Amino acid sequence: MNDVRIAVLGVGLMGADHVARITSRISGARVSVVNDYVTEKAEQLAVTIPGCRAVTDPLDAIADPDVDAVLLATPGPTHEKQLLACLEHRKPVLCEKPLTTDVETSLEVVRREAELGIRLIQVGFMRRFDDEYAALKAFIDGGELGNPLVLHCVHRNPAVPAHFDSVMTVRDSLVHEVDVTRFLFGEEITSVQIVTPTPNSLAGGGLSDPQIAIMRTAGGRHVDVELFVTTGVAYEVRTELVAEKGSAMIGLDVGLVRKSAPGTWGGTITPSFKERFGRAYDTEIQRWIDAVRTGAETGDYTDGPTAWDGYAATAVCEAGVQALRSGQRVAVTMADRTSIPGA
Amino acid sequence: MNDVRIAVLGVGLMGADHVARITSRISGARVSVVNDYVTEKAEQLAVTIPGCRAVTDPLDAIADPDVDAVLLATPGPTHEKQLLACLEHRKPVLCEKPLTTDVETSLEVVRREAELGIRLIQVGFMRRFDDEYAALKAFIDGGELGNPLVLHCVHRNPAVPAHFDSVMTVRDSLVHEVDVTRFLFGEEITSVQIVTPTPNSLAGGGLSDPQIAIMRTAGGRHVDVELFVTTGVAYEVRTELVAEKGSAMIGLDVGLVRKSAPGTWGGTITPSFKERFGRAYDTEIQRWIDAVRTGAETGDYTDGPTAWDGYAATAVCEAGVQALRSGQRVAVTMADRTSIPGA
Amino acid sequence: MNDVRIAVLGVGLMGADHVARITSRISGARVSVVNDYVTEKAEQLAVTIPGCRAVTDPLDAIADPDVDAVLLATPGPTHEKQLLACLEHRKPVLCEKPLTTDVETSLEVVRREAELGIRLIQVGFMRRFDDEYAALKAFIDGGELGNPLVLHCVHRNPAVPAHFDSVMTVRDSLVHEVDVTRFLFGEEITSVQIVTPTPNSLAGGGLSDPQIAIMRTAGGRHVDVELFVTTGVAYEVRTELVAEKGSAMIGLDVGLVRKSAPGTWGGTITPSFKERFGRAYDTEIQRWIDAVRTGAETGDYTDGPTAWDGYAATAVCEAGVQALRSGQRVAVTMADRTSIPGA
Amino acid sequence: MNDVRIAVLGVGLMGADHVARITSRISGARVSVVNDYVTEKAEQLAVTIPGCRAVTDPLDAIADPDVDAVLLATPGPTHEKQLLACLEHRKPVLCEKPLTTDVETSLEVVRREAELGIRLIQVGFMRRFDDEYAALKAFIDGGELGNPLVLHCVHRNPAVPAHFDSVMTVRDSLVHEVDVTRFLFGEEITSVQIVTPTPNSLAGGGLSDPQIAIMRTAGGRHVDVELFVTTGVAYEVRTELVAEKGSAMIGLDVGLVRKSAPGTWGGTITPSFKERFGRAYDTEIQRWIDAVRTGAETGDYTDGPTAWDGYAATAVCEAGVQALRSGQRVAVTMADRTSIPGA
Repeated sequence: MNDVRIAVLGVGLMGADHVARITSRISGARVSVVNDYVTEKAEQLAVTIPGCRAVTDPLDAIADPDVDAVLLATPGPTHEKQLLACLEHRKPVLCEKPLTTDVETSLEVVRREAELGIRLIQVGFMRRFDDEYAALKAFIDGGELGNPLVLHCVHRNPAVPAHFDSVMTVRDSLVHEVDVTRFLFGEEITSVQIVTPTPNSLAGGGLSDPQIAIMRTAGGRHVDVELFVTTGVAYEVRTELVAEKGSAMIGLDVGLVRKSAPGTWGGTITPSFKERFGRAYDTEIQRWIDAVRTGAETGDYTDGPTAWDGYAATAVCEAGVQALRSGQRVAVTMADRTSIPGA
Repeated sequence: MNDVRIAVLGVGLMGADHVARITSRISGARVSVVNDYVTEKAEQLAVTIPGCRAVTDPLDAIADPDVDAVLLATPGPTHEKQLLACLEHRKPVLCEKPLTTDVETSLEVVRREAELGIRLIQVGFMRRFDDEYAALKAFIDGGELGNPLVLHCVHRNPAVPAHFDSVMTVRDSLVHEVDVTRFLFGEEITSVQIVTPTPNSLAGGGLSDPQIAIMRTAGGRHVDVELFVTTGVAYEVRTELVAEKGSAMIGLDVGLVRKSAPGTWGGTITPSFKERFGRAYDTEIQRWIDAVRTGAETGDYTDGPTAWDGYAATAVCEAGVQALRSGQRVAVTMADRTSIPGA
Repeated sequence: MNDVRIAVLGVGLMGADHVARITSRISGARVSVVNDYVTEKAEQLAVTIPGCRAVTDPLDAIADPDVDAVLLATPGPTHEKQLLACLEHRKPVLCEKPLTTDVETSLEVVRREAELGIRLIQVGFMRRFDDEYAALKAFIDGGELGNPLVLHCVHRNPAVPAHFDSVMTVRDSLVHEVDVTRFLFGEEITSVQIVTPTPNSLAGGGLSDPQIAIMRTAGGRHVDVELFVTTGVAYEVRTELVAEKGSAMIGLDVGLVRKSAPGTWGGTITPSFKERFGRAYDTEIQRWIDAVRTGAETGDYTDGPTAWDGYAATAVCEAGVQALRSGQRVAVTMADRTSIPGA
Repeated sequence: MNDVRIAVLGVGLMGADHVARITSRISGARVSVVNDYVTEKAEQLAVTIPGCRAVTDPLDAIADPDVDAVLLATPGPTHEKQLLACLEHRKPVLCEKPLTTDVETSLEVVRREAELGIRLIQVGFMRRFDDEYAALKAFIDGGELGNPLVLHCVHRNPAVPAHFDSVMTVRDSLVHEVDVTRFLFGEEITSVQIVTPTPNSLAGGGLSDPQIAIMRTAGGRHVDVELFVTTGVAYEVRTELVAEKGSAMIGLDVGLVRKSAPGTWGGTITPSFKERFGRAYDTEIQRWIDAVRTGAETGDYTDGPTAWDGYAATAVCEAGVQALRSGQRVAVTMADRTSIPGA
């Protein structure tokens, strides 16, 4: 099957990152069209990617016959028109949040897609694809903890741009916890309250920060969220689920930690090398492929352990086998590397 | 640039895993040829991969004009001949360990590649590509801990096949720690001692397990390794580096944990969403691409949050903005989903 | 100086625990009088303690010339009268919470003590004496984290007695977090809100559990507390402080964990054996003293390593010194223990 | 029963610490005699302790009728003679390690005590009284992990005095791990090997540091110990037990962490407030007793939360109960503290 040809609309920080991702780490797709309201930015990017060109009008990009699917990384206010164009041309689209900037237009987009009878629109709430959130969702659904009751969330950024205001904390930060809540609990949120404590004096600029959001779901569950975007420390996202038979926390950089009867806490150890080193294998092979592609120029088709590394390991293991048999310390015998130019 | 065409030789557990990896997760490569000494296994696999065929003789596979590079996942005793064939045909090759099964042939392979003057052979010590080992290597090279002195390693498997013997502990398990030592310390190992304590009575079969390997490097550094392949627990690989100004440990499932003056321990928090959710983005995009490729059949071009999820998030955030302004609890207003068939 | 003679009033679960503590682990005090509204309970306890007698009326106990100070572990409704009696007799008193059961009588007690011009009343908020809370308080006061802004608290009990109701969650559980807040922030609480999510169906009995308390302090700081008294898991008390320059958490069973710029997390390692093993020394000496006191009866004045253990250690270290000098494995020579009856 | 009267021989760093411990934190004992080869040091200490005097000759101190038991914190070479005097006078003695400085005299002491038929000598291996070592011992004896096989120990000091030499690493540091091994495994050590890697260049002075001790027990079990006394970091003592059905580690500052089938890791949460806050209660009561003893001088018989703290907690909880009933935010009403002078 041929590669899926993607148009990436909006190649700022996020869009450019997606272009790099599709080009260098994703199987079965390539970027065929890029677009940005700063035309030159799209053009400069396009020339670096084989088979890619810049298109000036985003609606032309969507309609382009060389485009199988669209990735929307444009500003929120342009989403409505671009999404409707994607629906019109029956082009699958991955839309970075928000879907649109207000409820009316969001609902209109939902209606138009529903009328088509096929699902073409995916929204970029990427946390659902994070290993820890996926593990927490699976843990809840597994039923071991019983009925979920409460969610405590923390969302901290080290800093935000100068134009960031108190409303953006809700629209740009809280929105992720809104989706996490809906994803984990599988029900809608019915009320929201925002507490604004004494603000961080180091932040300046009238920003109400931190904010504490208190939400309630259709099933009466409680969610609280600390939103703090000027911590000066780091990016921290943490979620603790409290359920009838125990609790579980993610975001402590230690995977999912569970607490349950009879008074124990703990996690799961990777059962085999596949889980432990699966990503390492992916990285190894991707970097080897990349080296092979440039090897004709460099004379080096490797990006990792060389034949000498393999030889040395064999030599040490051979001594190890002798040591196992004798119970004594065994010296390792190895060739003089400098006697083999190029090794 | 065209995809690199890979021949995978040996499609047992490890080789088949590599075939799946290259086909579904790696950019810029595809499997054009598969080979196995069980011919049918290769044939059955080949038909599932577009543009791939099975070749009976591994040396024919290496010589095949449809093959740009070779991935060797065949048994160790066949490596020498296959590696030399790769060199002869100037084909880059990624060789699963061991390079060959004895020092003489390993050294011969090193010599032949060195004579060519280009690097074609990479050995599959995948730990060098693991995030934690890479972080430890970078931490050592950064110099903060000063001169490295000692390495404590633990290598535990829950179980091994019935034919696994005491020598295989050295050749198949210790070999990884041998490469880790050489990678981290950047010098050769000069002696090996193996201590065999009272064996695990639950293991049976005359296997000497656990074993303790004690190694010394050219620079006088000490390495000890616990090798225990019948723990019944899980796969655990741990490395602690002790240096002149502190120590660091990986493999505790909490990333790199450092201890250093003035009496503190700790780690690094992900500085931004890119580090925290970079892999989630990769997964999101890959799964979306996969869904787009099958969408024509299923009528569903999504594999993640839908337009309704986007609408719901917008509705909650809108209530959140009102709550921020009023300081009161605000009810969320949302359309009746059942009134929109298909949403 | 003579031991302080304590009257313990109320010898239920908590009072009896205090009697045992004063008798066996506290220096400079002894229990001279016990009292309980179940007279027999006090009498049965008194006979087990040298120099202690039961007194029927708590006010007599307070007035008793053999009593230097009073420990109140009686039910809350009796506190007012007993505290005032202590003030009248100028007896120092440690009063388990609550001070009294309503604000009016509490304030009256405060006034009466203030009129005396000496401090006689201490309230039993024991968390202020916990190492972790003390460390957190010291960390805040040290100023490293800057101005404190938010406190997240979790208070979980595995189970509560059948008569426990929703109001007791506030009076008996929240009260601890109230004191923690006042202790850590050094200011009064100005408002309280209680959220009651869907209750734990496994708890039964109409108890509103969990409850979420949301408090605000005079300085505008925010505190939220999860109160959950039927978790079925264990006793969990956790506090996270969020401040302008970082955050710190206690109650994770790993001491105080700090997060601060530049994006690091971590804690402090015990600097010397005194911090690491100080409590072990206390235990060692207390158990040795206890053994010495009973040695005449048992013929054994030890409760720990014996002379043979000392000999064996010396023998191994002697071999170790030889091993250090020779670089070889050295066998340990040791006497035959069975040849020394009684060793 | 009267307090046990202790003679503390040797009041250097360790002995003085024991004097303070017995005087201020231990129930049922007091220091009646102190002795030091620097006579003035003992005299200066004696005057600070009620009922204590300095005695010049350690043998006189042992024989003193005012002495019920002896705590030996004198230099090792004097232990033999002092221990034999204790035996002669039938005085129980707690002897800081080493028992004596060589095997012959150690064995002689063992023999003499055995001849008496009563146990009078306890050796100061305090780790047996540490909560974590005690938990590990109990965990081994509980049998959950099956037969113990291997022990990995780490013993690190930030620094040592200038006169510290390579032999002292064995005699003063390794000796603790020797006792830990014998305590945990319940069997003797049969051989020792010491590996001396390239030494820490920052240590200087010809000290061979770190050292790696490799020991084997009578039952064929393996023990390795990293001894590193110039780390510059902190005091770190860690022990990992590897057994047939799992492993457990202490010394990570997180209590005992267990790994066992089916591939899980974890620990135990404190089951009730007694375990969680038991030490806090001890501290609270001890500090209150101490305050009561000095209250007549200071006019303050408290060292903790005051009556006002009790009042404030009651006021907040009263608002909390109203908030629970109304579901609304409730303002806390509180008296003006400044209107009550002395509160």
